[in-house]
Amino acid sequence: MPVTVSADAFEAFARDIFVAKGLSAEDATALAHSFVWASLRGVDSHGIARVPRYVEMFENGIANPAATITVDDTRPGTAVVDADFAPGPIALTRAATLAVDKARTQGVAVVSVRNTVHTGAIGYYASLIADAGLIGIGIAAGSPMMSYTGAKGASVATSPLAIGVPAGDGRPTVLLDMATSLIAMGRIADAKRKGVPLPEGAATTADGIPTTDPELAKIPTPLGGAKGSGLSLMFELLTSVLVAAPILTPYHAGTKKHRQSATLIVIDPAAFGDVDEFVANVDATVDTIHGLPTADGVDEIFVPGERSSAAAAKRAESGIPVGDKLWTELVELASALDVTVPEV
Amino acid sequence: MPVTVSADAFEAFARDIFVAKGLSAEDATALAHSFVWASLRGVDSHGIARVPRYVEMFENGIANPAATITVDDTRPGTAVVDADFAPGPIALTRAATLAVDKARTQGVAVVSVRNTVHTGAIGYYASLIADAGLIGIGIAAGSPMMSYTGAKGASVATSPLAIGVPAGDGRPTVLLDMATSLIAMGRIADAKRKGVPLPEGAATTADGIPTTDPELAKIPTPLGGAKGSGLSLMFELLTSVLVAAPILTPYHAGTKKHRQSATLIVIDPAAFGDVDEFVANVDATVDTIHGLPTADGVDEIFVPGERSSAAAAKRAESGIPVGDKLWTELVELASALDVTVPEV
Repeated sequence: MPVTVSADAFEAFARDIFVAKGLSAEDATALAHSFVWASLRGVDSHGIARVPRYVEMFENGIANPAATITVDDTRPGTAVVDADFAPGPIALTRAATLAVDKARTQGVAVVSVRNTVHTGAIGYYASLIADAGLIGIGIAAGSPMMSYTGAKGASVATSPLAIGVPAGDGRPTVLLDMATSLIAMGRIADAKRKGVPLPEGAATTADGIPTTDPELAKIPTPLGGAKGSGLSLMFELLTSVLVAAPILTPYHAGTKKHRQSATLIVIDPAAFGDVDEFVANVDATVDTIHGLPTADGVDEIFVPGERSSAAAAKRAESGIPVGDKLWTELVELASALDVTVPEV
Repeated sequence: MPVTVSADAFEAFARDIFVAKGLSAEDATALAHSFVWASLRGVDSHGIARVPRYVEMFENGIANPAATITVDDTRPGTAVVDADFAPGPIALTRAATLAVDKARTQGVAVVSVRNTVHTGAIGYYASLIADAGLIGIGIAAGSPMMSYTGAKGASVATSPLAIGVPAGDGRPTVLLDMATSLIAMGRIADAKRKGVPLPEGAATTADGIPTTDPELAKIPTPLGGAKGSGLSLMFELLTSVLVAAPILTPYHAGTKKHRQSATLIVIDPAAFGDVDEFVANVDATVDTIHGLPTADGVDEIFVPGERSSAAAAKRAESGIPVGDKLWTELVELASALDVTVPEV
């Protein structure tokens, strides 16, 4: 039976673990907060299950617990953050703050992050930016896992895109957070565990043969064929290539490095008109979508981020469920690091 | 049999027609150039077939031939262009030039256009920006034509996204230009003409019932379900709502106006590192994609924009084919306006 831990208790717990692994209190907090955010919203693949994985990355030298993140403040509206192999949530939280500051004066800012080990949930940064009242767009790139139209095998990343738009008081941020693949890698693992077939056309074997068998499925297919694989390629150009840290080319040349990159674009609605009017129009548009006639068998129409936000509100009340295996792993980790385990 | 007209001759012809309808020489040239660009690339739906449609829009007062386009230069990195119901290619070409100028100093710029009647091929503006050596991102929004996940009927626009990245000398711009629907409206018309079925899941009837019959198909479905309809909604927020000219809400409230809006984001690669290195890495990434192992039955792997660019090179040599019906319409129009018809 899974245990349940309150979000605050879990965040403190994860922070303590990271501090014990050598992170500064500030960095440990940023990292722990991002995992709790994802777990609250039910995005378990980018949530607290990552805590032991990040500890492993610190131990085997993939991630740098004492990274010296450098910021190259290149232009009034732009900057490049070199993460020095810090975890994404640390480097990108900093990038988001910087981009928000710049966008408030320039109207728009782009901050690009190179040399991070794992960007984390890209929707988190778009959400942070929207919480500050601005529009956040985040894209990320990584190692090939997805097919590319016309090619055989894992060719490009499932590079995600997130867009967060602030809504009125008490309303959730309109937050789209999507991979460029038809289904996420996590969904293949999930189908495998449950022994259910995958949707037609959503994955191929390692050799590129279409399959619905989750045991054989290794490579997710791009969203809408050439559109999804094209988007993924463009995101590599707008992130890794933009900051002279290409991933695809060295990977396919056999000189792979474990590395991810990301670019955040922040737009200040105040630079385009009255902010209250903007927010009122966002809310009205959401209401318009909610009020559309429903398709047969549909009870309710949602806008992006709405269901995750409702899930988060529920888990903020009831706590975050943690599976047995993960909990055992975390308790062992805590014991080895002399970190207090929270009440469950 | 279709006639064939050289690109230059057609551009001059279209320009003369628009000048005869009251446009300034500069505006007429911008408009004609955008149509020829699309026709050269084989995007006939946004090409020279639009010439008589725009003339109609000028005649019935939907489009304003003598529009006073105003620019509100809001922040160092942003501006709002009010098109005064000028055709999109006129307002957006101006927006692209302004955004490029701003991005060269700020590193990034966002220019949003309100009150245009038809944005035209959004890829054209991304391409203009890439021709200037910068990265161009364009999104547009319009009237509902596509379904929204969970809703019945035409709910949101097939809002397109274009991303253009400059490549090395003699290489085509890497140019992704995609609708947020699975298939374009034009493809339904095409299947109807040819009497062939549509792909499964690509369209519904006016009542929202899935169909592959092009005679019954009225509403294209979003790319990847909730992802495509979510993207379309976000693009409405990032364009129309950003500039206080919402489209979806008045449309569904029954106070529809014929109107489109668009936002251009320009990023200067020079603000992120050495431009020569950037372009070399773009080219290397394209070469990497070209060099991937091909899937069974595939001869060649393409990057976005490559095939259209090859088509354009061919048509620049051989001329643009113009169908009988369109040519007759254009000749009649020219005769009524006392415009010289080019050699075919």
